[in-house]
Amino acid sequence: MASWKDNVRAVEPYTPGEQPQVKDIIKLNTNENPYPPARGVAEALAAFDAGRLRKYPTPDARELVEALSKAYGLPKEDIFVGVGSDDVLAMSFLTFFNSEKPILFPDVTYSFYDVWADLFKIPYKRVPLQDDWSVDTDAFCRENGGVVIPNPNAPTGLLLPLSEIEKILAANPASVVIIDEAYIDFGGESALPLLSKYENLLVVRTMSKSRSLAGSRIGFAFGNPELIRYLWDVRNSFNSYTMDSVTQAVGAAALADSAYFNDTCAKIIKTRTRFASEMKELGFTFPESSANFIFASHPDVDAAQLFADLKAAGIFVRYFPKGRTRDSLRITIGTDEEMDRLLAFLKDYLKK
Amino acid sequence: MASWKDNVRAVEPYTPGEQPQVKDIIKLNTNENPYPPARGVAEALAAFDAGRLRKYPTPDARELVEALSKAYGLPKEDIFVGVGSDDVLAMSFLTFFNSEKPILFPDVTYSFYDVWADLFKIPYKRVPLQDDWSVDTDAFCRENGGVVIPNPNAPTGLLLPLSEIEKILAANPASVVIIDEAYIDFGGESALPLLSKYENLLVVRTMSKSRSLAGSRIGFAFGNPELIRYLWDVRNSFNSYTMDSVTQAVGAAALADSAYFNDTCAKIIKTRTRFASEMKELGFTFPESSANFIFASHPDVDAAQLFADLKAAGIFVRYFPKGRTRDSLRITIGTDEEMDRLLAFLKDYLKK
Repeated sequence: MASWKDNVRAVEPYTPGEQPQVKDIIKLNTNENPYPPARGVAEALAAFDAGRLRKYPTPDARELVEALSKAYGLPKEDIFVGVGSDDVLAMSFLTFFNSEKPILFPDVTYSFYDVWADLFKIPYKRVPLQDDWSVDTDAFCRENGGVVIPNPNAPTGLLLPLSEIEKILAANPASVVIIDEAYIDFGGESALPLLSKYENLLVVRTMSKSRSLAGSRIGFAFGNPELIRYLWDVRNSFNSYTMDSVTQAVGAAALADSAYFNDTCAKIIKTRTRFASEMKELGFTFPESSANFIFASHPDVDAAQLFADLKAAGIFVRYFPKGRTRDSLRITIGTDEEMDRLLAFLKDYLKK
Repeated sequence: MASWKDNVRAVEPYTPGEQPQVKDIIKLNTNENPYPPARGVAEALAAFDAGRLRKYPTPDARELVEALSKAYGLPKEDIFVGVGSDDVLAMSFLTFFNSEKPILFPDVTYSFYDVWADLFKIPYKRVPLQDDWSVDTDAFCRENGGVVIPNPNAPTGLLLPLSEIEKILAANPASVVIIDEAYIDFGGESALPLLSKYENLLVVRTMSKSRSLAGSRIGFAFGNPELIRYLWDVRNSFNSYTMDSVTQAVGAAALADSAYFNDTCAKIIKTRTRFASEMKELGFTFPESSANFIFASHPDVDAAQLFADLKAAGIFVRYFPKGRTRDSLRITIGTDEEMDRLLAFLKDYLKK
């Protein structure tokens, strides 16, 4: 007998890192910022007039877009926003990747790309990273239906130089090239200066990492006005009001405090440098990170076992057990104190 | 030459009602609640620890789902949530409407349904309402790939009796039947009691209208656990964290105050009854409304002209100029004072 189940879209969902609700753990598994958001965020929440909530927000998320325009010195017409960069990326896949040709992304990368491609029935091809985990630029200069590359890449943390990104943009005038800069604020060189030169470029950002606002779900993107207009059109065919009024005020408050933002990013970079050097001393190897995590493996350690042992000790990191990533753990950069506790555990662990 | 524009998804976006940013207008155009949200909402905002925002919310929106479970006396497994009911409906279309057969919805109805169908390339057929604006139940009992009906319907406000809904559910075991109850709290009889009997039923709700939280973007849905699981799977293939931490706290606070909720709905129903009777006296005709709006026409008045004249006088209502709706205006029920000012304008207008 026919059933409603026959017409259900079959998917293999993305699995996010755990959000354990227990206290006193060291949480280095979802690349969250160890520092709270800018002080203005608490002030914005306290000052928010709840009576405003009876009305819809502006459909074009005006307050947030204006704050982004001011913070990044780019016109409002160049800016798109969404419910985290995942929403921005999902909308971008839906809007721009409608070719019969496969879209391209690295084989080791953000594991949501193939999930979106499957969801929207977009053909795709994984382009193998080179042996040193670097992106094989030439392989992205072949015929395709679209390109998406995180820079720095995740979970490797490796940065692709701007000259290589430009090569990919120049080779792909018939494709939208998405540079997913979720982690760019931790020392990478952004592709934003290429916007004026390449109308096929979309730069995607998030407030979840460098702005300490994972709990607020704010992503944004920059592109030429025509490309951005297409994105809004699809967004408006999906949900007219994705950015709630409180979240817009929170995002604007975070953007207003660039001193705190710069300071926080600098602190994380400093901790990363020190942590990386100590990890090397312990015999771990990893690609050089320009992100707020490192992707480390050790010749004498089984990554799956270490992952489990760390968890048992209340230290959560991220493990991707399939394929080339199976020997490494992705470790978020937390506070100095958190990294010290992890290092102490590892020193002990390696002695056994 | 090939261009990235060749692969853009072409859409005709939904047009929401205006959100004018001027003060001292009477805003009866987007079915917002004239009363503020429950007092607990302001308290939840003031008490929210901004430091929590550095972390991701629970991916399963636990806090909000638990509050809904408690408020509606249904198990958590029966509950799905999203960024407004538009997000819930978009996800539902994507999840359940994957047949080659057309989905069915009324010809005069929420004007987002055909937009989603176009966006996701779902075939659809509009089923004409009968002359008295009522839903033609029999026409929904023919072969289809899915059914979506708002109850009460918009913009008519007319309620379909539960017995008719049950007829549609019983006739469609091979289709998911979505009953969009955005306006059910204003006096309608909900399909929720049918959940235990029909596993093809999805009941969709929103906090935007009866809970005065349009600005917070909270929608939810009830269905059998298997159907709800499919929805979460597709949601998790789209965006792992759609419900931000503040919004979850806001929604839970609104749900906690059932006395305020009942009181507010009762006030709006009372105002609607009085307004409807005065409108009848002025010669307006309209289907009986079970929603927080009425859909009124007048034999001597051109609706487009009245819409423009109202707007010029600072009174915003909604006008759908195409097809059968072109002679009517959808007027949200505001406060008694707002309706009195509208009535005064109309009395004057009809004298001229």
